[in-house]
Amino acid sequence: MDKKNFSNPVDLKSIKVTDEFWHREQELVRTQVIPYQWEALNDRVPGAAPSFCMHNFKVAGKMMREKQTKGKDYVAPTYTFRGFEALPEDPQHPDDDKFFGFVFQDTDFSKWIEAVAYSLTQHPDTELEKIADEAIDIVCAAQLDNGYLDTYYIINGMDKAFTNLKDHHELYCLGHLTEGAVAYYEATGKDKLLKAACRFADYVADYFGPEEGKCKGYPGHEIAEMALVRLYQVTGEEKYLQLSCFFLNQRGTMPKYFALEDEARAKAEGTGFKANEDPMSYSYYQAHKKVQAQDEAVGHAVRAVYLYSGMADVARLTGDEEMLAACERLWNSITREKLYVTGGIGGTHIGESFSFPYDLPNDTAYSETCAAIGLAFFARRMLEIKADRKYADVMEQALYNTVLSGMALDGKSFFYVNPLEVVPQACHRDDRKAHVKAVRQKWFGCACCPPNIARIVSSVANYAYTENKDTLWIHLYMGSVLTRRIGEKELHMKLETKMPWEGTAKVELYTEEAVECTLAFRIPGWCNDFRIIPSSGADVTMTEKDGYVYLTGLWKDGDCIDLDFPMEVHMLASDTRVREDIGKVAFTRGPITFCMEEADNGRNLHLCRVDKSRIQVGDKWNVSVEMSKELGHNMAVLKVPGLRQEESPMQQENLYTEYRPMKETKTELTLVPYYAWNNRGEGEMSVWIRI
Amino acid sequence: MDKKNFSNPVDLKSIKVTDEFWHREQELVRTQVIPYQWEALNDRVPGAAPSFCMHNFKVAGKMMREKQTKGKDYVAPTYTFRGFEALPEDPQHPDDDKFFGFVFQDTDFSKWIEAVAYSLTQHPDTELEKIADEAIDIVCAAQLDNGYLDTYYIINGMDKAFTNLKDHHELYCLGHLTEGAVAYYEATGKDKLLKAACRFADYVADYFGPEEGKCKGYPGHEIAEMALVRLYQVTGEEKYLQLSCFFLNQRGTMPKYFALEDEARAKAEGTGFKANEDPMSYSYYQAHKKVQAQDEAVGHAVRAVYLYSGMADVARLTGDEEMLAACERLWNSITREKLYVTGGIGGTHIGESFSFPYDLPNDTAYSETCAAIGLAFFARRMLEIKADRKYADVMEQALYNTVLSGMALDGKSFFYVNPLEVVPQACHRDDRKAHVKAVRQKWFGCACCPPNIARIVSSVANYAYTENKDTLWIHLYMGSVLTRRIGEKELHMKLETKMPWEGTAKVELYTEEAVECTLAFRIPGWCNDFRIIPSSGADVTMTEKDGYVYLTGLWKDGDCIDLDFPMEVHMLASDTRVREDIGKVAFTRGPITFCMEEADNGRNLHLCRVDKSRIQVGDKWNVSVEMSKELGHNMAVLKVPGLRQEESPMQQENLYTEYRPMKETKTELTLVPYYAWNNRGEGEMSVWIRI
Repeated sequence: MDKKNFSNPVDLKSIKVTDEFWHREQELVRTQVIPYQWEALNDRVPGAAPSFCMHNFKVAGKMMREKQTKGKDYVAPTYTFRGFEALPEDPQHPDDDKFFGFVFQDTDFSKWIEAVAYSLTQHPDTELEKIADEAIDIVCAAQLDNGYLDTYYIINGMDKAFTNLKDHHELYCLGHLTEGAVAYYEATGKDKLLKAACRFADYVADYFGPEEGKCKGYPGHEIAEMALVRLYQVTGEEKYLQLSCFFLNQRGTMPKYFALEDEARAKAEGTGFKANEDPMSYSYYQAHKKVQAQDEAVGHAVRAVYLYSGMADVARLTGDEEMLAACERLWNSITREKLYVTGGIGGTHIGESFSFPYDLPNDTAYSETCAAIGLAFFARRMLEIKADRKYADVMEQALYNTVLSGMALDGKSFFYVNPLEVVPQACHRDDRKAHVKAVRQKWFGCACCPPNIARIVSSVANYAYTENKDTLWIHLYMGSVLTRRIGEKELHMKLETKMPWEGTAKVELYTEEAVECTLAFRIPGWCNDFRIIPSSGADVTMTEKDGYVYLTGLWKDGDCIDLDFPMEVHMLASDTRVREDIGKVAFTRGPITFCMEEADNGRNLHLCRVDKSRIQVGDKWNVSVEMSKELGHNMAVLKVPGLRQEESPMQQENLYTEYRPMKETKTELTLVPYYAWNNRGEGEMSVWIRI
Repeated sequence: MDKKNFSNPVDLKSIKVTDEFWHREQELVRTQVIPYQWEALNDRVPGAAPSFCMHNFKVAGKMMREKQTKGKDYVAPTYTFRGFEALPEDPQHPDDDKFFGFVFQDTDFSKWIEAVAYSLTQHPDTELEKIADEAIDIVCAAQLDNGYLDTYYIINGMDKAFTNLKDHHELYCLGHLTEGAVAYYEATGKDKLLKAACRFADYVADYFGPEEGKCKGYPGHEIAEMALVRLYQVTGEEKYLQLSCFFLNQRGTMPKYFALEDEARAKAEGTGFKANEDPMSYSYYQAHKKVQAQDEAVGHAVRAVYLYSGMADVARLTGDEEMLAACERLWNSITREKLYVTGGIGGTHIGESFSFPYDLPNDTAYSETCAAIGLAFFARRMLEIKADRKYADVMEQALYNTVLSGMALDGKSFFYVNPLEVVPQACHRDDRKAHVKAVRQKWFGCACCPPNIARIVSSVANYAYTENKDTLWIHLYMGSVLTRRIGEKELHMKLETKMPWEGTAKVELYTEEAVECTLAFRIPGWCNDFRIIPSSGADVTMTEKDGYVYLTGLWKDGDCIDLDFPMEVHMLASDTRVREDIGKVAFTRGPITFCMEEADNGRNLHLCRVDKSRIQVGDKWNVSVEMSKELGHNMAVLKVPGLRQEESPMQQENLYTEYRPMKETKTELTLVPYYAWNNRGEGEMSVWIRI
């Protein structure tokens, strides 16, 4: 590892995203998603599944107050455990003093507060900050004196705490709480929630660890690993980094902790226990091998990329070369064998998991929004270790396509699952596709995706830029103004671009005094040629490495850089091992992947194909790009020469008839960006098109 | 309905199948399957799932003997109900006096005895008959004094009898017992088992019926409907026909019986009951509508076609025109929207069911062997009402392809599920395909398919010929000798053919005196042209109707008929609504559907396609037909001009790369009959091939 090239995301307070494309998305999150989620957290959205999140914090807080009043005589009420999701008799009025919802329901708040924090950096809002502060008060009031803070066990009885790390998401709750707390502290300087997170983390650090007598467990659902690294970075407390290392290094050790835990629980409950002999069953949790030995991305896709993100963090901070090598192997496993052309991951809904290499079904895809978000986390962390275009290309692909596909263009409904081919009838009538929704949903009981979108969209600048003392890396191109402190000096940078629709960008620099530093511009993998031209007065040298152009020198006020990454239409074929895509092509342009929709192309999209005889003109694809405002914002639409096969007559006597050259009519296929699909009612969609 | 054209299957004792193709299959059943199954029924097959079938009959019989000894003091032991499958501690030594296996385990015997019966008509075997008689003794010894005969309830406690018709298959057991008993009586003249079946049916007829106070239920798994018709036909007892009518007409009545039953059971057990509000949940059992109102084939595919078979029987015998119209609609629903090109049915493993119209996935197909067998039952019964080629074409397609695919060429292993595309890795690594086995299995705990194959193969002549007073219909062409009694006279017929490999056949007639009758020959749907030429001396008229040629006249000794149905290779395309098959073709020749196998064509069959530029020569397909003995018997193999796409380089950096016209090499694709696939070890297979 070359520490010289390590970097960190820029401070969000030093940057404003002004970009037409991303500013629109951030405003959606700010004006629609965050207020809506706050209502949802408080069970005030008619017709949507209640969250019970704030209810649970209030119940736990009330218990704490009673304890304070009654002092030592207090005995916590105990309830029967209700499994993963507990529901009140009347879901709209959960006035019982009980825990409701999923075991990890606390994280609804944690993700929301994180999104709020990022949003405040881009758009200060005293009213929202007040609501957030009050929410934090409610949450902190629920914390036990010893620092523990998970309402499921606080309400249901602490005797069972940490007895089911595999399935009960306690350490996942710690992780999300920490992420939210750090973000809120960084955004506002207020440390009440950060202190609560530290106290919970301290409690966990006392409970778990390599020392004798401490618990040897680790999270069933990863995220604490990377969250603890953030806590370490913001507090400087080594023990949080050590706790993260401990959790990582425990995975895959023998005997398997989850089996010991299952056994202990069965013993305590007096039920039978049978050890699970199948080593692969642990791969769902990425606990089948030591993390340093893992080489294939397996199991629950969100957990996997959250783990790999934590591994990358820890590898960077501890210099664990074996762990980094594992990260690189896992990266290759994902991107060479398990990645959709939409930047999505997770081929199977069974276990919401990665499937086997090259198994990337389009119509039964899982491709969870959160998994694409997690892939961006992983990519950004690999970039922090080494700026290599390959990471940024995939990060960009995930962000512009599957992540944004997760949210409707009005910010009011969401996809969990992001298939690459949809026939609504099949989703409605075929239980094998029951996980694929034909339209976005308002809110989920298990609401991971909507708030996850909110937090990544609000903090997208953290994915666009990383920096170290010497260098500012521009990984993604989005209109923004940014201030960089170099010693005592400040360099102000303004980037303007019409990405993702045009490949040009212009950077202007303003500074009171000339400053020495390096600006590193990514050459996107999707352009075959590029121009990066500093203004004539700029006294800089230019080098190229791993897909980045490094401009180094003394920057003066008024220096400019013109960037041009020609944005051609690409017609892609998949690796021949991807059986589902054989004989088909997909279209991309810049970071955007396109798809056909019924709204533009009529029903029975499977009858459409690209007209091979007309698709090529010289050495270019004969595809025209048109800008459209039909869906309420500027976006590119592709027009592709196509053929449409004539349908069989209705009520044909025989399903199978002698082959005849197909009757096909020439047509023009209209392709819209994948992120924008399904904003015109229910209909068919397909990314891959026969040729 | 035109009763004049009603027909019945010929008496199996009057016919011998001499055909090379079918005789081989029948000999497999006789020499391999029947003895193997007898061992399996007695739990003597090492490594195979035990049946417990004869064990259960013996336990029940012992209880009966104890009762006889102890007289009125006898109290039947009671056991806890164990749900669908009960297993002993040591499966190989179930010496407990308990019931083991599935609730319908008795039918293992019933199907076996039925296959034995048919086999005895074709190949008398005193030793086998002796084993069968002894088995019948064991079974009959278990029958209660009142006639009831289902060991599950006899052993576990009769207080629960008929309390779970929906799931506990009691009336299914009655149905199979009856089918076996009738077949054994018809084959051997021995009526011990027939009497037992009558007594059980009498008991059921006393228990169920329209009269006040009688139970209004009907079978959860159909078969009793058609079995009772057979019992009626062999005994002349009207009440069996009436019971069958009652069962049919009860389906879909309100309130739904299964809900009442669920409620009563919940009440008796003191557990909660919540009425199932979803009317479609009854479609699994075909109880969602009155049978006369049904128009789409839905639910569990085997149950469905067993029901439709019973409906066709009852419509014919009672003249219920509405029921016949429903049969015709259901037939069209299957054959126009839900039939695989292999004659298989049941598109989804979820509920082993029909999927929605035109949803015929190849790789996740269910296409259960038993469902194809049931489709042949249904087709034959429709032919008994009206000889229309369309029924025989589908019957032939099911029999020659999916039914036979269910059994290995050595008769030693079996497929439940008959997919049209298999990639072994996907079956092993992808739980979405867990139901698809990459190789045939030896024996199943739920052993419906192997004995079902045995009984249909042994009685295949019943599908080839039906007759009435005037006419003998030849629906399928297979070498056979047959004696037909017309009044006091006998007409002997010998049919010789090399079907399914050559399209010619020759019929020779022998008779002491000239006899007047009609011979009706089906013109197979797969031939475009045909010749049917009586020998010059034959004094007959020839008419054609609904795909049959009727030769009527006075037949003399030595008269012959030459038949020629030219057998071309067909390259079929599916209806454009079948999304899975778009851009693909399948090959058939005569009744045989072909497929590609890895053994002949290498791995990655998805890279192969038909070479459009070479596939046509004049107005013929450029496909050569070769006879092969490679798989141990004569069979045709097709050689198709093909192309094979070059594979992407191993460890290619990017999954998706710019489209380039594919590098393809010319190749010759080898196609084997679908029924013969997977007899050379595990490997890929595909019926549909890209073009």
